[in-house]
Amino acid sequence: MEYRKSTLFNAIELIHRGVSNCNLKDIDITIDLFGKKLNAPLIVTAITGGHPKAKEINRNIAKAVEELNLGMGVGSQRAGILDSSVVDTYAVVRDYDIPLVIGNLGAVNFIVDRWDEETVESAVEMIDADAMAIHFNPLQEAIQPEGDTNFKDIHILKDVISKYKKMYRNIPFIAKQVGEGFSKEDAIILKEIGFDAIDVAGSGGTSWAMVEYYRIKEREFREFSGRFLEWGIPTAASLLLVKNVFPGIIIASGGIRSGVDMAKSIAIGAHCCGVALPVLKAALKDAREVVKVLERMIKELKTTLFLVGCENIEELRKTKYIIKSELREWLNIKD
Amino acid sequence: MEYRKSTLFNAIELIHRGVSNCNLKDIDITIDLFGKKLNAPLIVTAITGGHPKAKEINRNIAKAVEELNLGMGVGSQRAGILDSSVVDTYAVVRDYDIPLVIGNLGAVNFIVDRWDEETVESAVEMIDADAMAIHFNPLQEAIQPEGDTNFKDIHILKDVISKYKKMYRNIPFIAKQVGEGFSKEDAIILKEIGFDAIDVAGSGGTSWAMVEYYRIKEREFREFSGRFLEWGIPTAASLLLVKNVFPGIIIASGGIRSGVDMAKSIAIGAHCCGVALPVLKAALKDAREVVKVLERMIKELKTTLFLVGCENIEELRKTKYIIKSELREWLNIKD
Amino acid sequence: MEYRKSTLFNAIELIHRGVSNCNLKDIDITIDLFGKKLNAPLIVTAITGGHPKAKEINRNIAKAVEELNLGMGVGSQRAGILDSSVVDTYAVVRDYDIPLVIGNLGAVNFIVDRWDEETVESAVEMIDADAMAIHFNPLQEAIQPEGDTNFKDIHILKDVISKYKKMYRNIPFIAKQVGEGFSKEDAIILKEIGFDAIDVAGSGGTSWAMVEYYRIKEREFREFSGRFLEWGIPTAASLLLVKNVFPGIIIASGGIRSGVDMAKSIAIGAHCCGVALPVLKAALKDAREVVKVLERMIKELKTTLFLVGCENIEELRKTKYIIKSELREWLNIKD
Amino acid sequence: MEYRKSTLFNAIELIHRGVSNCNLKDIDITIDLFGKKLNAPLIVTAITGGHPKAKEINRNIAKAVEELNLGMGVGSQRAGILDSSVVDTYAVVRDYDIPLVIGNLGAVNFIVDRWDEETVESAVEMIDADAMAIHFNPLQEAIQPEGDTNFKDIHILKDVISKYKKMYRNIPFIAKQVGEGFSKEDAIILKEIGFDAIDVAGSGGTSWAMVEYYRIKEREFREFSGRFLEWGIPTAASLLLVKNVFPGIIIASGGIRSGVDMAKSIAIGAHCCGVALPVLKAALKDAREVVKVLERMIKELKTTLFLVGCENIEELRKTKYIIKSELREWLNIKD
Ligand SMILES: Cc1cc2nc3c(=O)[nH]c(=O)nc-3n(C[C@H](O)[C@H](O)[C@H](O)COP(=O)(O)O)c2cc1C
Ligand SMILES: Cc1cc2nc3c(=O)[nH]c(=O)nc-3n(C[C@H](O)[C@H](O)[C@H](O)COP(=O)(O)O)c2cc1C
Ligand SMILES: Cc1cc2nc3c(=O)[nH]c(=O)nc-3n(C[C@H](O)[C@H](O)[C@H](O)COP(=O)(O)O)c2cc1C
Ligand SMILES: Cc1cc2nc3c(=O)[nH]c(=O)nc-3n(C[C@H](O)[C@H](O)[C@H](O)COP(=O)(O)O)c2cc1C
Repeated sequence: MEYRKSTLFNAIELIHRGVSNCNLKDIDITIDLFGKKLNAPLIVTAITGGHPKAKEINRNIAKAVEELNLGMGVGSQRAGILDSSVVDTYAVVRDYDIPLVIGNLGAVNFIVDRWDEETVESAVEMIDADAMAIHFNPLQEAIQPEGDTNFKDIHILKDVISKYKKMYRNIPFIAKQVGEGFSKEDAIILKEIGFDAIDVAGSGGTSWAMVEYYRIKEREFREFSGRFLEWGIPTAASLLLVKNVFPGIIIASGGIRSGVDMAKSIAIGAHCCGVALPVLKAALKDAREVVKVLERMIKELKTTLFLVGCENIEELRKTKYIIKSELREWLNIKD
Repeated sequence: MEYRKSTLFNAIELIHRGVSNCNLKDIDITIDLFGKKLNAPLIVTAITGGHPKAKEINRNIAKAVEELNLGMGVGSQRAGILDSSVVDTYAVVRDYDIPLVIGNLGAVNFIVDRWDEETVESAVEMIDADAMAIHFNPLQEAIQPEGDTNFKDIHILKDVISKYKKMYRNIPFIAKQVGEGFSKEDAIILKEIGFDAIDVAGSGGTSWAMVEYYRIKEREFREFSGRFLEWGIPTAASLLLVKNVFPGIIIASGGIRSGVDMAKSIAIGAHCCGVALPVLKAALKDAREVVKVLERMIKELKTTLFLVGCENIEELRKTKYIIKSELREWLNIKD
Repeated sequence: MEYRKSTLFNAIELIHRGVSNCNLKDIDITIDLFGKKLNAPLIVTAITGGHPKAKEINRNIAKAVEELNLGMGVGSQRAGILDSSVVDTYAVVRDYDIPLVIGNLGAVNFIVDRWDEETVESAVEMIDADAMAIHFNPLQEAIQPEGDTNFKDIHILKDVISKYKKMYRNIPFIAKQVGEGFSKEDAIILKEIGFDAIDVAGSGGTSWAMVEYYRIKEREFREFSGRFLEWGIPTAASLLLVKNVFPGIIIASGGIRSGVDMAKSIAIGAHCCGVALPVLKAALKDAREVVKVLERMIKELKTTLFLVGCENIEELRKTKYIIKSELREWLNIKD
Repeated sequence: MEYRKSTLFNAIELIHRGVSNCNLKDIDITIDLFGKKLNAPLIVTAITGGHPKAKEINRNIAKAVEELNLGMGVGSQRAGILDSSVVDTYAVVRDYDIPLVIGNLGAVNFIVDRWDEETVESAVEMIDADAMAIHFNPLQEAIQPEGDTNFKDIHILKDVISKYKKMYRNIPFIAKQVGEGFSKEDAIILKEIGFDAIDVAGSGGTSWAMVEYYRIKEREFREFSGRFLEWGIPTAASLLLVKNVFPGIIIASGGIRSGVDMAKSIAIGAHCCGVALPVLKAALKDAREVVKVLERMIKELKTTLFLVGCENIEELRKTKYIIKSELREWLNIKD
């Protein structure tokens, strides 16, 4: 289920270049992300693991991502860490030659379950990860009847990350939201903690409030989650807020649905884009369907570069654009 | 009946804090209001008294408010002052242990009926009030065929309040609108008169023009009240206008319908929130229903603090927010 | 038929005064207009004359205006000047004791038909006029298949007016639009010509393009008039543009439909308001119906003064207001 | 099929002149374009040539344009250049006495097919052209399965144009978009290349993405073209962007549908207007129908001049106007 709240990509206009001055066939959209070469600035972000259908879904994504030479993340590895019998639902990605595999753990569990660098290592090993995403999901936890809602002392992650890098290996850590975005203040904290990258996962795409709103039958709980349908920082706004203060890699996700959205994200500051829901829908069918979804987005991205007269991603990052008032308003935050 | 005119809370965005850094269970939303400790910044504002059903309604509210340790006001006490046989419809609140009970008299009656400090004392005694609200309702009076519409020489209230405080007791006086809000100029006058608090009761919630519009059958009167359906200062605008010039306590009411609305009100300057219509609907059933409505709002408020990374109401009063253009326009008033 | 184009009165907000500090019964809305005392700042502007039903309509308006002590204009007197047999359809107003009777001639006829001060005198005499309105209706003429569309050398009116005032009597001359408004540049010219007053008659009320659009059956003509449905300067915009450069009397008309519209007009600079279409509809019935329409507007105006805390029209002219962006845009006209 | 994306002419308001001060019959809308006298600032832009129905369509347009003394362009002459048997579908325009005939070749073919000044000469000769339009259509090429998408090294046109002018004759060259507009940066390049004129052909009228969207049945291709339905620079925005940097002639086209649109285009900087789709629809019937469409636009344009008090096109170019925020946003382009 997607937010009614918009990503606000519709409040960005890229500037058509009527003369183009590019050869569409020569347009190069490859990027280097964390030292890995990807054929496009696109990763499939964390979706699943730990339950019966997960292995098949992860396999379908892995196959497609191998074929297209892109990156992918697995879903939260908590289940795999608690129960070794489900490890294979994640580990299936090891069977494929994927340039960038990203592990996934929840920030709240480092507080609530006192996880540490060893937990990280279990997760990395499980899938032979090239990078680790730590997800921050306060709304999701708050809205679920049994959620873990103690995010106090999030700074302990600083110690975990620095120890892990010293004791194990120097892989990048990504701070990841799950659909409500990060603010400027968040980005400053995440930098202090030592994160190498931020995946904004802003509002406008998958909405946990809406998932709960439709899942739960009791009127009382529905009304409660219903209040937060409009919550969060739109993806485009989160990108603009974060990029000004965070010096590392920025991944645009949350409602990325086309290559035009991708181009807009990159034009306003993202290094790479992430997508989850449309890939999940395709992966429930087969790997071919996932390839189709991703290829369409890649073709659209290339076409967009052609239309704004950019020959590669570096040029796209410098292209001109318009920010309309609905989005500009997010840049005037008052104390 | 509620205004079509919005409260303009939808033109405020609180800034999601993706990392939260709070423990939801430790969030403290208690406040001190007029020296009384409330479990949440929430009071039920004036609704009823004087007619047959009123006693039951007031009892249901009182029970719920006692259980949740919040404040409540009774409806206009004019009926009780004119006719001792209906006093019990108000006095029923004395049977409950409520931290903050607020009496209610109409400003216009101090002019038209030459009320004085003794009238205030009757009202205070009637319900053992901890504070007195004086309501200002020019639209309501103007729109009712038999309304009292002489608000000239409102300054006589200065004398009444100061005498009452000297001769009887030093309780706080609240200037209260009933659904059209106060302007900056009003707030300056209310300060001069000596009010300790303002309850803005702005437009966007209960609308007296709409009540009349649907109540009256004659086309002529309907058309007349219909002209004022869009009248008044939206609650969010009234809060912003009043807080800049009024040094006392500010209560946000008029269309407060969720804990998110409450959090927005407090972020932009209110000390406490008030609610009437949703509580009336619940109180027509029973106290349990009133508890449910209020508990839901409280839970939503706590969740909102968690999501903006605030541990208590003082921090919420300093949190960041966006004011969108529809609301900003209310701050550029021209002479 | 009314414009879809708005008057933009909805882009003005008067500021509710929650304390009022007025006595509704003492509010004085009388004005002096051209040395005549009117019971309210309201005139019925030019509607009809010259055809069979006109006498009855003018009589009904005259009766009502006499009863309420307001002003009124007759429709274009061209028919009466060309054909003495229809003079009584205008002259009927002489049977009533009306404080301000306004004659009406078309500006274009002074050019096309070489009218002069004697024509003015015929018109004045016909109805014993206290003031003369000269209407400017280029759109109406252009859109009618047989319209007079030579407005070149409009300056000859300067001579006519000055001669008339010298040779006959010093009555005020009103430059009047008919539903598309005057611009700032127009107002400067009208001042130079020697007009004492401007009746803006802006867009948002009666639309001549729409009248033609629905009247004409041929697709070609309909399409043509259809292009101009959105033409003109909204009444509120025209008032703001004109008042800055025109030192004389300003009458707000074009889509004035309530006392709230009246109050907004006066707050932003008008001295008096005018209304046509709603009065025409009532006058097709009887004088009682006209009284009702006008009384409702007067009652609404008084109530509005009460709600903004103004005791008379002079105070209303100084009250505060908000101009929203749709209207503010009309004030940034580019060369 | 037309864009849902607006031309943004609705975000421009011309200022009604209530006094007009013009004689509609004397209004002169003739212009000189490239040394040719046209009865109105209106040309029919490139539509067709090369296929069976094209001859009839071009004949109908030519007849109408001869009668009204306007300019016209033929569609892309590539077919005529590749296959002499279809030359007559273009050459039919030679049978009519048209003040301004414009040839049409695709910019991309100068790159892909290595066309040169001789190709230009073939095209000029084919129709006895008074001017040559070179169209830039990157979106159209990208969205068609078999499109030519190599626009790299567009600067070779500089050489072609200068050689042609030296070796053959000094006719003007027009850089023409086909429905997505030119940006400021484009205009700077087009000036460097040596174009004498720009036909902006912005978005808001005929949309190639929409044509493909409805033409193609396969879901995959539809989805792809669907992403670009909202692509491009609205015609009004393109005009404002281009006019600031391009010193030559500017033609407004793309969604010009009325004389009011024409007047707005000219007021904000265009020298002439162009129209395609409405003329195509009429030309599928007969020349009479084309005359009707064009005459209606001319009548509307004249009426608009009358209403803004302008006696000719030069005055219209200096008339006042309002630019509303949706359009103003296009002028704040960020790097
Ligand atoms: C079914 C589903 C499961 C998800 N599980 C996780 C997860 O375990 N860990 C995580 O960091 N994000 C998770 N996400 C969030 C996504 O990675 C992504 O941030 C979010 O869905 C927004 O992107 P979208 O709008 O493209 O779906 C999940 C999303 C979906 C739809
Ligand atoms: C049925 C009803 C009766 C009310 N009676 C009073 C009253 O006697 N005195 C008063 O000050 N306000 C009265 N109010 C106004 C409320 O206290 C409150 O200011 C207003 O309804 C706006 O809040 P709401 O939108 O939450 O209803 C009444 C409201 C309602 C709905
Ligand atoms: C039926 C009708 C006839 C009118 N005839 C005249 C007229 O003869 N002279 C004139 O100056 N205005 C004439 N008007 C214009 C009105 O005086 C007024 O300026 C215009 O209708 C806008 O006001 P409204 O929106 O209240 O109708 C006429 C209006 C109507 C509806
Ligand atoms: C059917 C059709 C064919 C066209 N063919 C050409 C062409 O061959 N060359 C060209 O430069 N433009 C061509 N155009 C584009 C038009 O000249 C014009 O720029 C565009 O349609 C926008 O104007 P409109 O909104 O008035 O249709 C064509 C347009 C249509 C509708």
